[in-house]
Amino acid sequence: MADKYVDIDTLKYMLYDVHNLEELLTRERFQDHDKESLDLFIDATKSFADKELFPYIKEMDEKPAYHKDGKVFVHDQVKKMMEEGGDLGVISGPFDYEDGGMQIPLLAQTASNYILDAANNHLPGYAGLTQGAAELIIHFASQALKDTYVPHMLSGRWGGTMCLTEPQAGSSLSDIVTKATPTENGHYHISGQKIFISGGDNQFSENIVHLLLARIEGAPKGTKGISLFIVPKNRPDGKGGLVPNDVTTVADFQKMGQRGYCTTHLGFGDAGDCEGYLVGEANKGLSYMFLMMNAARIGVGRGASAIASAAYQASLQYANERPQGRKLTSDGTKDINEKQALIVEHPDVRRMLLLQKAVVEGSMSLVMLASKYYDLENTASSPEEKKKYNTLLEMIIPVVKTYPSEAGSYAVNNGLQILGGYGFCSDFILQQYYRDIRISAIYEGTTGIQSQDLLGRKLTMGNGEGAQLLMAEMMETIQAAGQIDALKGYAKVLGDKLQLTQKILGELMPFAMKGDYERFLADATIFMEFFSLVIIGWTWLDIGVNAKQTLINGNGNYSDEFYESKLETLEYFFAYEMPKTISQAEILMHPSTVTIKKEKEYIV
Amino acid sequence: MADKYVDIDTLKYMLYDVHNLEELLTRERFQDHDKESLDLFIDATKSFADKELFPYIKEMDEKPAYHKDGKVFVHDQVKKMMEEGGDLGVISGPFDYEDGGMQIPLLAQTASNYILDAANNHLPGYAGLTQGAAELIIHFASQALKDTYVPHMLSGRWGGTMCLTEPQAGSSLSDIVTKATPTENGHYHISGQKIFISGGDNQFSENIVHLLLARIEGAPKGTKGISLFIVPKNRPDGKGGLVPNDVTTVADFQKMGQRGYCTTHLGFGDAGDCEGYLVGEANKGLSYMFLMMNAARIGVGRGASAIASAAYQASLQYANERPQGRKLTSDGTKDINEKQALIVEHPDVRRMLLLQKAVVEGSMSLVMLASKYYDLENTASSPEEKKKYNTLLEMIIPVVKTYPSEAGSYAVNNGLQILGGYGFCSDFILQQYYRDIRISAIYEGTTGIQSQDLLGRKLTMGNGEGAQLLMAEMMETIQAAGQIDALKGYAKVLGDKLQLTQKILGELMPFAMKGDYERFLADATIFMEFFSLVIIGWTWLDIGVNAKQTLINGNGNYSDEFYESKLETLEYFFAYEMPKTISQAEILMHPSTVTIKKEKEYIV
Repeated sequence: MADKYVDIDTLKYMLYDVHNLEELLTRERFQDHDKESLDLFIDATKSFADKELFPYIKEMDEKPAYHKDGKVFVHDQVKKMMEEGGDLGVISGPFDYEDGGMQIPLLAQTASNYILDAANNHLPGYAGLTQGAAELIIHFASQALKDTYVPHMLSGRWGGTMCLTEPQAGSSLSDIVTKATPTENGHYHISGQKIFISGGDNQFSENIVHLLLARIEGAPKGTKGISLFIVPKNRPDGKGGLVPNDVTTVADFQKMGQRGYCTTHLGFGDAGDCEGYLVGEANKGLSYMFLMMNAARIGVGRGASAIASAAYQASLQYANERPQGRKLTSDGTKDINEKQALIVEHPDVRRMLLLQKAVVEGSMSLVMLASKYYDLENTASSPEEKKKYNTLLEMIIPVVKTYPSEAGSYAVNNGLQILGGYGFCSDFILQQYYRDIRISAIYEGTTGIQSQDLLGRKLTMGNGEGAQLLMAEMMETIQAAGQIDALKGYAKVLGDKLQLTQKILGELMPFAMKGDYERFLADATIFMEFFSLVIIGWTWLDIGVNAKQTLINGNGNYSDEFYESKLETLEYFFAYEMPKTISQAEILMHPSTVTIKKEKEYIV
Repeated sequence: MADKYVDIDTLKYMLYDVHNLEELLTRERFQDHDKESLDLFIDATKSFADKELFPYIKEMDEKPAYHKDGKVFVHDQVKKMMEEGGDLGVISGPFDYEDGGMQIPLLAQTASNYILDAANNHLPGYAGLTQGAAELIIHFASQALKDTYVPHMLSGRWGGTMCLTEPQAGSSLSDIVTKATPTENGHYHISGQKIFISGGDNQFSENIVHLLLARIEGAPKGTKGISLFIVPKNRPDGKGGLVPNDVTTVADFQKMGQRGYCTTHLGFGDAGDCEGYLVGEANKGLSYMFLMMNAARIGVGRGASAIASAAYQASLQYANERPQGRKLTSDGTKDINEKQALIVEHPDVRRMLLLQKAVVEGSMSLVMLASKYYDLENTASSPEEKKKYNTLLEMIIPVVKTYPSEAGSYAVNNGLQILGGYGFCSDFILQQYYRDIRISAIYEGTTGIQSQDLLGRKLTMGNGEGAQLLMAEMMETIQAAGQIDALKGYAKVLGDKLQLTQKILGELMPFAMKGDYERFLADATIFMEFFSLVIIGWTWLDIGVNAKQTLINGNGNYSDEFYESKLETLEYFFAYEMPKTISQAEILMHPSTVTIKKEKEYIV
């Protein structure tokens, strides 16, 4: 089995050089941290991942989490993840000191979590959801609820979940029916069913704190009548102890991948004794949930990129060790007397490696950029600055979630192919990554939903102000690249793609203006593919500017080959990936309406 | 679970209308068959598949074939597949009467096998490999060997395999080292190891007949020193019985998919007592094997298309039954008072369905076309005609193997996505098809190898004569389509793509002429993607001509909607798939050499 799952040099290069973490540390919120202390945090995460996560990835696939007699059983390492991870700051890292946090920038936390995800994608979710649930409580719940729940969650002794999906509603949250009935004691009685609840239960956690969306009796229909509740598996009995809160695990979902990360079907109040505690105001639940959604979507993108990273490292190692076939001679034949070539020497294999590297590192840089926007928003010194970075984050978030998921899956597919028949065999890890990563395009809003968000909401936000702001950021990189001879060509291409984006929007927007939203959004997923390549082209150009300038200045921390390899991958991206935008533009501007249902019977 | 895995109307439409099986039946070889008798054969296959294959697909995944104490255990249905399938003619179908066959056209056999593959892709391989092994014996072995082995194989009582791959050689057959030592008795002693042997053993077959490539002591190096042997698991003892032939199952390979189809590691002659019987002449083994390769590659393409068919039907059924979300109103919002839409009504879902349909039916037509070329070659009335159809088959075979595998995998991926979270869950079949189909791009020569074959060998064959012949066939369809108003636009596009193909070859061929084969073939896989779309565009145009003419003439066997649905899928293909050729052409003609290894250290 491969022994490397992430290139730490590249991760630190992205963190410190490309995204300049140190500049962020000048903000007051982060003043107690410096590069050395955060470097120790990252290194400690890596040691933890090497010891407690990576060695168990195969085992967690082979012995998946399971449900028996109303209980969920998970791998022993879940306890380590939660408790040792909790002690390390995996859960509490980004929170305020006063809430028990460490005020670590999300940018640094993203780098740290990337390592965990790459080491073993079945484990970090338990901590990540606990963090998300704690964040909701910290932001919106009363002090009493905070005091009751948050400390146990940050230490990893109590788990946390998000309970949104219901069987009859799927992605359509306006249709949820879980019911909350007010009582005289101030709490609510909860009754309903939630499905696809990740980390919904396990044999180790003393308690699981569910953050649940439900409808208070008499609330308005649709999304405007949804409230947020804390619904613990065990509720405080008022005497310092816990009593069961009528939350039952009805079943679990066995899955194609990420099998060590349990997915549950939970019943609330089947026996009429399930208490829920309202978080914030009634009927505002969805807006609270969505405030947390950006971080969750960065998390999904990060996880997908990290799985692709592990797959890339495994296929790279194989390609560098496996001899097979021979290089072609000048008459197009092979000389049997030559010794076998390593498969890394075959251009087709090298293409598949560069493809993976371009996706992995491009998306790694993108999730860091999103994290940095998040930090800049949250530490802004003026409302204008706050709005600017919030807008930038909102603009890219659908891509941050989707590109690593979709292109990451494609990258892992190529990694598997490099191993040939072995890639399909259970003894090799590639097939597992291929299965594991497939959930990413579904989690936290499918690719279809992200694409509708991108085209239907983000690009039209504030009459296109968000789009202009983002393009202005991209123009800065294009201008910087335009100053460097070796990068001028790429700068020109990216500039042209921005113009092409405008042209596409010019074709599509009139449909929205005419009220034909169905037509406007019919090809949103193709637009997502297009716009993702533009965004990742930008991240690669940004990396290229940094790498080339470092080579010119001769002041890098790494070898010249390290920087040249980044420039080589930039070249790959613009030669093999960016041209796909031409076809996507063609598709987006075609006149066909074949995907829109006609009046007559559906006949596919 | 879905209850439909193939659209039989479409299958028969392709067989009888698009590919005109009846015309083929006028050939002398097939004179005993007519449409009615072959229709019965197809219907019998469908009944067999409904009863003995489809109900077991999930079980075969959950309880995979396994190896224990030197034995391989497979699902009970393997016995049914071999014996009842054998009785049905699944193995003997295409062979001559004198060899125990039924002289069924491969075109009809392909339609029949498509049904089996779609019903349960874990089973037909046992029969398919037995057929391939029998075919090698029938074509090249002595009458005595034929008499000994073939009848038992055609009845399905004995299995057959192809033993090519060895651990140290992988796809590079020139490096195989399995040794054959002549004896005074005329047979050879075999010793060596073979891996990835599908159907290598099972608890039901009385015997397994391995067709094995080995090197006779002193033979020339490389591919010119490889001979073909029959090496049975149990050899005739000369008294009408069988004795063990020192063939051992060393291990099996557990896999991500197709888990009911055993994959074995076999040892030959570990105890010095393994007899092999030379097939045909010494050192000609690889050329014999390659004569069978076209049929094997049609089989892989057929199987991949069939898995994609089953996935399409399952996702189509889900989309037609699952309510979720609402259609957009004219102000871009959703009206919560409306009832939920079926997801099939959402354009993005409809796009994913049309994508699947375009891939499934386009590749179904392509594997039938290849089978028809095969039949026309084998029943040709002149050497010129034989050469013509052989050339056409050789031209398209890499695409026939690769497009269904790669695009089929992409199609299944979209089918899974339609189910959202359920697509990832083991209770739904999509995730299994997603895993099962992934082997197709590896079997019988990976996509990389097929692509090198296409660009490096087929397109340059006879100074481009093969390419001209194929393009002439395509021009016939373009001209026919040009006569029909509704299809003129597509005809023009396909014509343009032929010119674009010439342009790309004009850019690439000079590298070959200069002896820079590495550069010439570096992007062969991208060329495969490009050329596949041109070919499938052609098959869709061909279907379109038939469907439209039938609508115009009003003489169809099916409803108008049936034909309109074909035209709609043609529209989808030219609106959403064909434009990808523009980018592929751009990539193929770019000046970058980033995938070609430089002199300096490899730095990915």
